[in-house]
Amino acid sequence: MTTQITAARQGTITEEVRKVATEEGLSAEKLRDRVARGTVVIVCNNVKEFSKPLGIGEGLRTKINANIGTSLDVCDLNLELEKAKVAIKYGADTIMDLSTGGDLDFIRNLFLKEVQVPFGTVPVYQAYIEAVRKDKNPTSMSVDDLFRIIEKQMKDGVAFMTLHCGLTLDVINHIIEHPRLNGIVSRGGAFLAAWMISNDKENPLYSEYEYLLELAKKYDVVLSLGDALRPGSLADASDYAQLQELMTISKLVKRAWNKGVQVIVEGPGHLPLDQIEANVKMEKLLCKGAPFYLLGPIVTDIAAGYDHIAGAIGGAVAAMAGADYLCYVTPAEHLCLPSIEDVRQGVIASKIAAHVADIVKLGKKVIKHDLDMSRARSILDWEAQISLSLDPDKVKEMHHRIKSKSGACTMCGELCTYIILKKFQSKKIIRMP
Amino acid sequence: MTTQITAARQGTITEEVRKVATEEGLSAEKLRDRVARGTVVIVCNNVKEFSKPLGIGEGLRTKINANIGTSLDVCDLNLELEKAKVAIKYGADTIMDLSTGGDLDFIRNLFLKEVQVPFGTVPVYQAYIEAVRKDKNPTSMSVDDLFRIIEKQMKDGVAFMTLHCGLTLDVINHIIEHPRLNGIVSRGGAFLAAWMISNDKENPLYSEYEYLLELAKKYDVVLSLGDALRPGSLADASDYAQLQELMTISKLVKRAWNKGVQVIVEGPGHLPLDQIEANVKMEKLLCKGAPFYLLGPIVTDIAAGYDHIAGAIGGAVAAMAGADYLCYVTPAEHLCLPSIEDVRQGVIASKIAAHVADIVKLGKKVIKHDLDMSRARSILDWEAQISLSLDPDKVKEMHHRIKSKSGACTMCGELCTYIILKKFQSKKIIRMP
Repeated sequence: MTTQITAARQGTITEEVRKVATEEGLSAEKLRDRVARGTVVIVCNNVKEFSKPLGIGEGLRTKINANIGTSLDVCDLNLELEKAKVAIKYGADTIMDLSTGGDLDFIRNLFLKEVQVPFGTVPVYQAYIEAVRKDKNPTSMSVDDLFRIIEKQMKDGVAFMTLHCGLTLDVINHIIEHPRLNGIVSRGGAFLAAWMISNDKENPLYSEYEYLLELAKKYDVVLSLGDALRPGSLADASDYAQLQELMTISKLVKRAWNKGVQVIVEGPGHLPLDQIEANVKMEKLLCKGAPFYLLGPIVTDIAAGYDHIAGAIGGAVAAMAGADYLCYVTPAEHLCLPSIEDVRQGVIASKIAAHVADIVKLGKKVIKHDLDMSRARSILDWEAQISLSLDPDKVKEMHHRIKSKSGACTMCGELCTYIILKKFQSKKIIRMP
Repeated sequence: MTTQITAARQGTITEEVRKVATEEGLSAEKLRDRVARGTVVIVCNNVKEFSKPLGIGEGLRTKINANIGTSLDVCDLNLELEKAKVAIKYGADTIMDLSTGGDLDFIRNLFLKEVQVPFGTVPVYQAYIEAVRKDKNPTSMSVDDLFRIIEKQMKDGVAFMTLHCGLTLDVINHIIEHPRLNGIVSRGGAFLAAWMISNDKENPLYSEYEYLLELAKKYDVVLSLGDALRPGSLADASDYAQLQELMTISKLVKRAWNKGVQVIVEGPGHLPLDQIEANVKMEKLLCKGAPFYLLGPIVTDIAAGYDHIAGAIGGAVAAMAGADYLCYVTPAEHLCLPSIEDVRQGVIASKIAAHVADIVKLGKKVIKHDLDMSRARSILDWEAQISLSLDPDKVKEMHHRIKSKSGACTMCGELCTYIILKKFQSKKIIRMP
């Protein structure tokens, strides 16, 4: 058994590379070359088959991820399964299970059975929570337990994992000397930091990175190098701690590639709008083009209840600058576990962000959808407008709220420009479809 | 009686300039200079007093406008008044009445009585609709009627008006020779184009521009030079017709300034994300820094039902590049007359776009709000988080849906990073407020 990156380096075009190349509309050879260089990952492990392998990275469509999962306060498996289905229906390319409540092994395996898109986890959650349950003391988590859980999740068929390998004692000491407004907002990062400070030990994901790479290689799991120190507020954006972690991660990327392991790099977080491009470019330069997975970014701290919009603004600008993969943000961010409707809103907002960036990055490949919609609009073809939209049910409901007698909509009625200008069809002001 | 720009040129700091300077936190002299150069307009006419004068332009907070008004299909005055109130509650700086149904004079005067923020109209709507009602033939509208209506609206106290003065026969002939996918999507522009083609006459707002300037000067109404040829689809973005109209408008800006009339320039529309900055810069260069008022821009054609999000992405990027004033886009765009909830969604999305750009443009003046929110977040002060949000009712409802026993929210509960890290307070990972 070999990994996708190793096969690609040996010149082999795998079945998965072929499928992704077809899906993305580029040559398999070109894609193989990108997988070999590490600028594209093929998310597909060698345990569980998904509906289709997924490519993330250079020159491919921007992908979006939806986080779901139980919490300590709300642990309803059917609800979370429904969220996953809604997320996939509206265009999520991957699902990550962030469950922290209930039987975590059972929940993960249920999701793995029901969810047909590539599926990711954050294994340190389970390790930390099991230590809490066992000893009432999370910092008692043993390194063996952590790696046992990581391998168990890989064996179960998890395709990619967030692992905060770049969080070191050194950078935690920096934060202690120079406190941030919002400290460490990554949950996995906070778990590890708590463990490291209490035990006065280096992060095992960093010190035992070689062993982690062996596991990842064995199952061809994609490592998503988590940014434990992503800024949790604009005040902490692009600071020393964040950049230092990225520097460490850039070295880990190369070590993974040397070992034949596929990696992606995670990024912020809360960022002012004018810092996004620099952040993306810096990741691409330092990490030699490794795919960049952004959590948002959110461009203001005050949009609670509407953080999906702040995230769509940041995500669009980031993806245009070269980010490859966006983690959705729901309206519930900072407030509560998302509802099904929050998940729908979050996925659609991310989908818009990804699409508007892809219009710029991929041009003709994706803009046809826009052209079809605008053509349908110009001839007032409402059926086509509904079916071409991102959320046909909502569009249909809105357009049909009140019927306009005009054939146009209730905004303009007979005064619709397309009705007025149609009278001048011979003058061809509108290009007729 | 003089206009704000004339007074500013004479070195006079008017009462209105003084108020706006205080509001915006800059020196009155600096603001006077910008008003004199035309890079800032003071929206305040000399007929009706608003709750406060409003400045739009260079170095000021990005402003947002909400369109409301009846349509041929839905004509409910109370509903529209309620929309105006909701729009103002959530942060609209101005309201434009785009009514096309019912008694237009009555509606406008009712709004003028009830709405205390600067109020704008598109007078060609009334002129066109009255011609339809009188003669069943809109193109029978007389030039005298058009200017009579413009002056009537100015006398009523309208503070700014969209007038498509840059639409010329020449550029319409260009579109006829080189049809666009979506033709002319500006409703006022389509009315004028229909009139011009049918009558084979130049646009009276262009040919009688000097007379229009006299009227605007008399009442110190701000002319918003409308972009009749804004692209209605990505396919038509930044094309010859759009730029030709902007070139014409740039000349009209100078003529207005020479006459002592305040102007702002309107811009697109549907634009790919990577064309926004160029469009803003080009307007600023050609029009010598005249304030730029953008209708969106919307960065994809396929976001029907969610166009407020597409508009927030475009608006944020435009405002960061220098746009001064954003017209909101609601989820109902392209589909129907907006509901009250659509208006709320649209205003908040625009507000987020304006704020994230202002963080970049104005720095400390606006980022305090974000710092306060993040500080409240770090100590789990939910009351402060609710009151600092853009929509406290919604945030409160979401956060209280299910109560977490932890004092944090239902996403993380006891696993909240702020609870975990608090245990390390002596280590000061979080800067304590």
